[in-house]
Amino acid sequence: MTTDAQRACFEAGIKFGSLYHQFAGTPVSPASTRSLEAAMAEAIENQPFCDAVTVDIHDDRVAEAIDHENGYTELTGSLMDVEMRIAYEGVTVRTRMAMRDGYPLMELVAVDDPTGDPDEGDEVNVDS
Amino acid sequence: MTTDAQRACFEAGIKFGSLYHQFAGTPVSPASTRSLEAAMAEAIENQPFCDAVTVDIHDDRVAEAIDHENGYTELTGSLMDVEMRIAYEGVTVRTRMAMRDGYPLMELVAVDDPTGDPDEGDEVNVDS
Amino acid sequence: MTTDAQRACFEAGIKFGSLYHQFAGTPVSPASTRSLEAAMAEAIENQPFCDAVTVDIHDDRVAEAIDHENGYTELTGSLMDVEMRIAYEGVTVRTRMAMRDGYPLMELVAVDDPTGDPDEGDEVNVDS
Amino acid sequence: MTTDAQRACFEAGIKFGSLYHQFAGTPVSPASTRSLEAAMAEAIENQPFCDAVTVDIHDDRVAEAIDHENGYTELTGSLMDVEMRIAYEGVTVRTRMAMRDGYPLMELVAVDDPTGDPDEGDEVNVDS
Repeated sequence: MTTDAQRACFEAGIKFGSLYHQFAGTPVSPASTRSLEAAMAEAIENQPFCDAVTVDIHDDRVAEAIDHENGYTELTGSLMDVEMRIAYEGVTVRTRMAMRDGYPLMELVAVDDPTGDPDEGDEVNVDS
Repeated sequence: MTTDAQRACFEAGIKFGSLYHQFAGTPVSPASTRSLEAAMAEAIENQPFCDAVTVDIHDDRVAEAIDHENGYTELTGSLMDVEMRIAYEGVTVRTRMAMRDGYPLMELVAVDDPTGDPDEGDEVNVDS
Repeated sequence: MTTDAQRACFEAGIKFGSLYHQFAGTPVSPASTRSLEAAMAEAIENQPFCDAVTVDIHDDRVAEAIDHENGYTELTGSLMDVEMRIAYEGVTVRTRMAMRDGYPLMELVAVDDPTGDPDEGDEVNVDS
Repeated sequence: MTTDAQRACFEAGIKFGSLYHQFAGTPVSPASTRSLEAAMAEAIENQPFCDAVTVDIHDDRVAEAIDHENGYTELTGSLMDVEMRIAYEGVTVRTRMAMRDGYPLMELVAVDDPTGDPDEGDEVNVDS
């Protein structure tokens, strides 16, 4: 049988894929980062088993990515950090997306299963 | 030659298509409508020649569309009204999306060309 | 430590969220289902650890969903079945999306971990 | 009153914004360009007043954009050329997206209005 911890990790992955592919490509400038962060976090928190989402879009990276006269760029994984906490049947999963060696990685940080053996994980994925 | 008014209308259409297909499908609930409205408006206002965007997501329609236990639905054209004002080389174009006979229509409302003959338009399009 | 099986499930979830939120909202008619199925499967198979994806968009459901004169609708979870096989460090995960009680469910079907105890799972998630 | 030519240009813009923001961000590799081209063209051709769409994703640019070990990249405007023909009430509009000075431009190429004065246009827009 699949375990509750495995299902919790599956749910955590769904949220990450959803957040990334729903919002990647959104026009963004330093003037619109705050509203986009809030909308992304609140949208994904609507999904089942999603306890908390924080999105940090880095204004300096956005400014640097704006390399033409129009004054905006498109949202990509390299412009933001994301953290999520998923809770499923007593199991808590923490995940994050951050830059590693120049690429945005979606990482399974920790799985806290009261009936199992929680511990710190490390990076597992490149999805950019 | 294509006229400035025609180009302004082309730009106005780009903004509508962008807004709709970037954000349709976003998980939404009455608790997250305000942040999504703000993010949509500010994101599209980043695009060139886009003077103003207002997005109104109707909480009552969102609540009605939530027909299962998870407490959220996905954003579609039937849940919101959108108005935009585009300015290109002195021409101002006003557009909106609203429900007509049960379907969301993207409409070219008015083209104000100081060198031409501005007037009120009427509904022109179904893109849902 | 997070286990390989947990990481495989996280990866499987990422693929499902990606597929859904990249392609939901795409204009679709019975004339364009085959090309959309192929593009969705091949696009997601590009992602790491993704062995196989099959997408079946049901022409009859698409035809039924076209309720206005324009002759097309937008892709949603209720119009298709999806199956995926993910492979991560020797662990194989099978997932699917199909209708359950009128809603599309993303399900963790089976986790085959040669070092663990593989078995059939059951439905775990509603993400529509 | 808004003219048929203006409305045709508005429709043309909608199609471009839709195509771009629906499909930008899709995972793509040289192995999946053909299916993605076909799906994009057929999807947008479903929309009203859209006579013809051609999408050319350049395999060499895709290969060049794959700068990490995963073997895929995300679709952006710089990887493709797009041409569209829109027909509205006897007016034909031709549009394209192509690289200009290193940026993808959406251009209104020509408006052919039998009751007006058709001619070649030139580049009008940067929406990337």
